[in-house]
Amino acid sequence: MIDVAADYCVVGAGFAGLAAALRLDQAGRSVVLLEARDRVGGRTFTEVRDDGSWIDRGGAWIGPGQDRIAALMSEFGVKSYKQYVAGEAMMLVDGKQCRYRGTVPRSLSPWASLNLGVAMLELIAMCKRIPLEEPWTAKKAARWDKISVGHWLDRNVRSGAAREILETAIGGTYTSDTSEPSLLYVLHQMASGGGPSFVFGVEGGAQDSRIVGGMGAVYGPVAEAVGDRLHLSQPVDHIGQDDDGVTVRSPDMTVRARRVIVAVPIAIAGHIRYEPMLPTDRMLLHQRMPSGAIAKIHVVYDEPFWRADGLSGQSAAPGTAAPVTIDACTDTGRPGVMCVIAEGPDARRLCAAEPTERRARVVDALAGRFGPKANSPVDYIEQIWTRERYSGGGMISHAPPGVLTGFGPALRRPCGRIHWAGTETSAVMCGWVDGAVRSGERAAAEAMRQEARAG
Amino acid sequence: MIDVAADYCVVGAGFAGLAAALRLDQAGRSVVLLEARDRVGGRTFTEVRDDGSWIDRGGAWIGPGQDRIAALMSEFGVKSYKQYVAGEAMMLVDGKQCRYRGTVPRSLSPWASLNLGVAMLELIAMCKRIPLEEPWTAKKAARWDKISVGHWLDRNVRSGAAREILETAIGGTYTSDTSEPSLLYVLHQMASGGGPSFVFGVEGGAQDSRIVGGMGAVYGPVAEAVGDRLHLSQPVDHIGQDDDGVTVRSPDMTVRARRVIVAVPIAIAGHIRYEPMLPTDRMLLHQRMPSGAIAKIHVVYDEPFWRADGLSGQSAAPGTAAPVTIDACTDTGRPGVMCVIAEGPDARRLCAAEPTERRARVVDALAGRFGPKANSPVDYIEQIWTRERYSGGGMISHAPPGVLTGFGPALRRPCGRIHWAGTETSAVMCGWVDGAVRSGERAAAEAMRQEARAG
Repeated sequence: MIDVAADYCVVGAGFAGLAAALRLDQAGRSVVLLEARDRVGGRTFTEVRDDGSWIDRGGAWIGPGQDRIAALMSEFGVKSYKQYVAGEAMMLVDGKQCRYRGTVPRSLSPWASLNLGVAMLELIAMCKRIPLEEPWTAKKAARWDKISVGHWLDRNVRSGAAREILETAIGGTYTSDTSEPSLLYVLHQMASGGGPSFVFGVEGGAQDSRIVGGMGAVYGPVAEAVGDRLHLSQPVDHIGQDDDGVTVRSPDMTVRARRVIVAVPIAIAGHIRYEPMLPTDRMLLHQRMPSGAIAKIHVVYDEPFWRADGLSGQSAAPGTAAPVTIDACTDTGRPGVMCVIAEGPDARRLCAAEPTERRARVVDALAGRFGPKANSPVDYIEQIWTRERYSGGGMISHAPPGVLTGFGPALRRPCGRIHWAGTETSAVMCGWVDGAVRSGERAAAEAMRQEARAG
Repeated sequence: MIDVAADYCVVGAGFAGLAAALRLDQAGRSVVLLEARDRVGGRTFTEVRDDGSWIDRGGAWIGPGQDRIAALMSEFGVKSYKQYVAGEAMMLVDGKQCRYRGTVPRSLSPWASLNLGVAMLELIAMCKRIPLEEPWTAKKAARWDKISVGHWLDRNVRSGAAREILETAIGGTYTSDTSEPSLLYVLHQMASGGGPSFVFGVEGGAQDSRIVGGMGAVYGPVAEAVGDRLHLSQPVDHIGQDDDGVTVRSPDMTVRARRVIVAVPIAIAGHIRYEPMLPTDRMLLHQRMPSGAIAKIHVVYDEPFWRADGLSGQSAAPGTAAPVTIDACTDTGRPGVMCVIAEGPDARRLCAAEPTERRARVVDALAGRFGPKANSPVDYIEQIWTRERYSGGGMISHAPPGVLTGFGPALRRPCGRIHWAGTETSAVMCGWVDGAVRSGERAAAEAMRQEARAG
């Protein structure tokens, strides 16, 4: 058993915990950062291949307005490049695969286009009425929190094709069936990024750019800066607090500190044993923000052959073994990397298959969509986030109906000497890597402020 | 570290775990029963007072159709007595306290009565269309699972008074705001007991009778029968399974068995570390069935003075410090025991107060309702289930929208050598003590059957 003492302890070395530890360290505080896995990055995870190319097995994109991840990148001299969008996208609409440019297929019927347009305008209007810091105080919060976003779609989108597009987009974001997240939560999460156009957008939106070197090019140097204050393979299972400080324990380590920042996904934050028990609302909140299911699979080819065929690589075909695809090449465009994303029920179906069968089905689906060249991958890298014990699923936790209005204030409110970080606690860019960075910086500032007050 | 080996290990000594261990033992199997608390009973907990009277601090009632708890009672020679219902009940309707006989106040407007009646008939009709074993296969399951029961009330009950009555009744059952449980889940739970009339009913319903000696008069002898195979204060934090069996660990004990029955509330079943990880759907289910909040307070008087005043002791006044009250005397009617139940948001508000202030507010509310005699209690016993670490809240877990249709089959499906018990897994009397007993018996039979097959 290793005993360590520090001013602050941070639990979880995803972007939230890394940012918190970095800022505490830069402010001259001593800090210990404990990470359950044998790697940092949390729900981001960059693999560098032998040829120097990289794969972002988790969170990959950045976009305009994401100033805090941008600040970290500039601090460590990391560059970005644009997501490849040239060429046509493909979408399975009413059972037919269509190629199109722009945001939606031209082949969409006027009725479907109208439906889609009106629904988007309505979502945009509702998002504007969400106070970011306290979405539960929105004038219609109670009403919007009483229904699932799926029910809202049922009521407001009558065209089957439009419905399918929105189901895929919204269900995908929460990696759950749309019957699960509350409308208020979805509005809040979208509003935190600037609205639905940002969330669903590629160029100028949440998928605008990728990072040269991948997310690891950012979290790597941050982890290096934290240095030997970072301890890997230390799954924290106990957090005690008393009048003088906190005691944070993993099976191998005990850290004594003034305060602790818990920066783990909210869906698994309740697995830690807190002594004394957390306040009622926080304890109940831990039971109420489930994660979804997501599998992110990268299929590597000698070159991005789809580009030569006039395709962007973007496609949507819910229910297939490759429900969503997008070009994931590095800035050099070589090798060709196709990213396949399965979310929610699609992901759970895909993950139930044996690995060899899954690979066969995914490659087969790609060949059906992009032609026989897709049959000859040189590499296949799959990341089943739902099988990651220390993510508890992926991408993010959502709030079902009633939770944000009932328990929202508990999301960020410190519990004595325990402060909460993680992208789900961020009022701005909630759910993105940028939100994680913000949440870590906010928690660090909050902990130092409260400590200064107490001292 | 104590090492024990047995055919079967059971985790949790509430009624589900006790019934499982008892039936395994009676079938000649060796069994070890681990309980986290220093007592058995789980979400039931009987306190016997110095004068021989008893208080059921948790689950208290039985009703017709609850054959498995009845079977246990007859096995151990335990008797029941009727819940006291003579006299008038009281209800706060539109801000006015009214006394009434029967199911609802006569002072309810014809409009409210009509509304209430039609809503009840509609609930009854929907419940009849729920297949108990697989509610997710109901014809309208997807539709009913897409909305919260609160939204259904919004749509179907326009009278404020009728709405308040149903809100209190339904919200109370799930000890949560009605915006949280899905309509399908509520229908399923009600149907599992025979329908809404059973759920809300006192005479002939779920609150028909109490047990002479309290629930402890049943779980006590069962625990005695299990004898030294029961180990208290053993919070299980690890369950491993391999080709030959399971390894179940608490900080002090390791049990090696062929199979394990996990009989802990589903809201906290995910706190155990499973090796290998549970199948995706079960893992995600553990994040999706939260508990509510409930405080059950017993105020003891020399005699049940309200009876002499022509009152049954039953009252409903949501939003006050005594939201629901009911006579909780023993079969002798002495001393006078008034039970105060606060549920959901009411409970969370009440629990946020300091104990002395809470007591003052509760007694004050009783005096306001039942007269100054209520100001002189001889005893005050409070049970805040939401602060019970090994309940994770109370009374039962519910499923938010999308969960039953998405993850329902994972509720009972064994995960290799792990079998699941607990009242929430019962197709019949789900949520009651009887459902717990049934679930334990079902899991025991299932485990023995699978073991016989494997052998």
